[in-house]
Amino acid sequence: MNIHAENLAAQLRAVFRAWGMSDPATEASVRMMIAADLRGIDSHGAMMLPLYDQLRREGRLNMAPEVKIVRESPVTALVDGDGGLGHYPAETAMRLAIDKAARAGLAAVGVRNSNHFGAAGVYALQAAERGLIGIAMTNVWNTAIVPTRSTAAMFGTNPIAFAAPGKNNPPFCLDMATSTVAIGKLKLAALHDKPLPRGWALDAGGAATESAQAALASRKLTPLGGTPELSSHKGYGLAAMVEILCAMLPGAWFAPTRAQRHPDAKRFNVGHFFMALDPKAFRGEGEFETDLDDMLDALRASRPLDPAQPVLVHGDPERAAIVERERHGIPVPEALAEQLREVARNCGAQVLI
Amino acid sequence: MNIHAENLAAQLRAVFRAWGMSDPATEASVRMMIAADLRGIDSHGAMMLPLYDQLRREGRLNMAPEVKIVRESPVTALVDGDGGLGHYPAETAMRLAIDKAARAGLAAVGVRNSNHFGAAGVYALQAAERGLIGIAMTNVWNTAIVPTRSTAAMFGTNPIAFAAPGKNNPPFCLDMATSTVAIGKLKLAALHDKPLPRGWALDAGGAATESAQAALASRKLTPLGGTPELSSHKGYGLAAMVEILCAMLPGAWFAPTRAQRHPDAKRFNVGHFFMALDPKAFRGEGEFETDLDDMLDALRASRPLDPAQPVLVHGDPERAAIVERERHGIPVPEALAEQLREVARNCGAQVLI
Repeated sequence: MNIHAENLAAQLRAVFRAWGMSDPATEASVRMMIAADLRGIDSHGAMMLPLYDQLRREGRLNMAPEVKIVRESPVTALVDGDGGLGHYPAETAMRLAIDKAARAGLAAVGVRNSNHFGAAGVYALQAAERGLIGIAMTNVWNTAIVPTRSTAAMFGTNPIAFAAPGKNNPPFCLDMATSTVAIGKLKLAALHDKPLPRGWALDAGGAATESAQAALASRKLTPLGGTPELSSHKGYGLAAMVEILCAMLPGAWFAPTRAQRHPDAKRFNVGHFFMALDPKAFRGEGEFETDLDDMLDALRASRPLDPAQPVLVHGDPERAAIVERERHGIPVPEALAEQLREVARNCGAQVLI
Repeated sequence: MNIHAENLAAQLRAVFRAWGMSDPATEASVRMMIAADLRGIDSHGAMMLPLYDQLRREGRLNMAPEVKIVRESPVTALVDGDGGLGHYPAETAMRLAIDKAARAGLAAVGVRNSNHFGAAGVYALQAAERGLIGIAMTNVWNTAIVPTRSTAAMFGTNPIAFAAPGKNNPPFCLDMATSTVAIGKLKLAALHDKPLPRGWALDAGGAATESAQAALASRKLTPLGGTPELSSHKGYGLAAMVEILCAMLPGAWFAPTRAQRHPDAKRFNVGHFFMALDPKAFRGEGEFETDLDDMLDALRASRPLDPAQPVLVHGDPERAAIVERERHGIPVPEALAEQLREVARNCGAQVLI
């Protein structure tokens, strides 16, 4: 079934209110989840609600968090999410970074005591919509990426998003996990009973596997690169960079040592990192955007290997999804729709889809 | 033959002086090239001298550049390299970023009208040695990376370097091209007459090739990921991000449209991007470094797939090379030594190796 974005938003809103979330936190979460769904990033939109519900029931989510700026300078800030869902502190932090960068040319804001924040690209784009370059990253509480040579998952899928404004082009927007693929791709392969391409995932012992079942059971993903021969140490290094900026810098937790360092903690303490940068601190008005257009146009005009598959730039597939989904609604499999209804029923919220 | 770093430095210094380079430019270039050689990054050290000589003879390098700060704020700056070698403007820019970040918590400095600057990691490490997080990137005048779906090389190997200071651990230092592998690896495969792993390179038509000869002739590399199935669109996106920060932001040139946009230009106008970030703007004294140690120690202690190959963190191989090369000298193949001597003879410099 396809559900119109407004109706899906209304359902999410009803649930968050029934959970006792504040209005600003509710609106931020709804906005960021629907933005992910509209962009075709299904894994980071409404599909997350059942997991959020589970965390809530386990006492791992603060339903009435007090999101606070705990440190601040003209170009930096540290935001504390107080253990609630990540969207509200993340949006607060990105807005801070944007406002500071619009004044000073550059700003970085870290977030600690946060949680899942949805799709990183949506935050980076908020900067681009204000004429700034935006960067958004997060660490993750459950590990997946196995460092090159190792057998142990040591990082989450640790995404990097980077957005930049064009003049006649819509913004460039890279939004990538630092793993070769997302867990969702393993699930899809398992559903279709297909072998995995070599280089996607590892079995419980840390050896390369082509079995989707073995990979789903181990939850062990390769870093971007896939194999040592194809330079997986680079993806491993990028995942570590994201961890350093999102965990060590704001004071969030590194999942592999969490149990040992914080044995009594129920919550996860996820961290994020946001940055905004004003091209006008470096170039004259409009020069950056014109030059970016030149690059984007040249990339799209370059000769494709397969004429049926033109060369894309980052952000193109998501914009196509938005056009499609704003017109025809967001495709929600019946199984997911039923899960969302059940979450609503369980907390006494109205069922709206 | 092995040449002691001081002797190799003396040879480079004699050549740069004979070329008429200023003392500060000479010292910066010598320092950065020897640092690359000591770290085992042979492709970015003394081995570059013959290419620099060729650019000089072609009139593509300004031997007496006036490196200038053309725009500046408390947290940003734009440096113009005036068409000389990249090391001097790059070191100037990184030092500016470090000094500004030490005062303000964060700074970004762009460089335009520059050239090859050596190994990106050496600049990022300068920040880490001052207790800051450092980032260094550069674009490249000759293209190599072919975007996913395309047949045309549109980016250089566009490297990203990221360094961060530990407490008891030496700095974490990621220094990676955004291509799957460097051109040097193709040359090595050709020398040994070995097929290339699928996913490293493309032939002139843009199709995957296992022929090192075909790949060297086409100079077409895949973006990190290697194949679309293994998410080469991510490496493509990272290469584009580096281009945006190093070309569009400071006002350097995008190689594929250079001939069209700047038909009369002899020089290349390469650009760089540097950033420094002070952990103390976010955490209490020493907290960041302690948490980074916790991560680095956990990574090294994680169980390796092959007990003979322990898990490394980024910076480990380079530090091992430094220990070895400070003791036993820098290995210089006789063919390279003869090239260096010829460069010296051609400009009337003393032959010192």
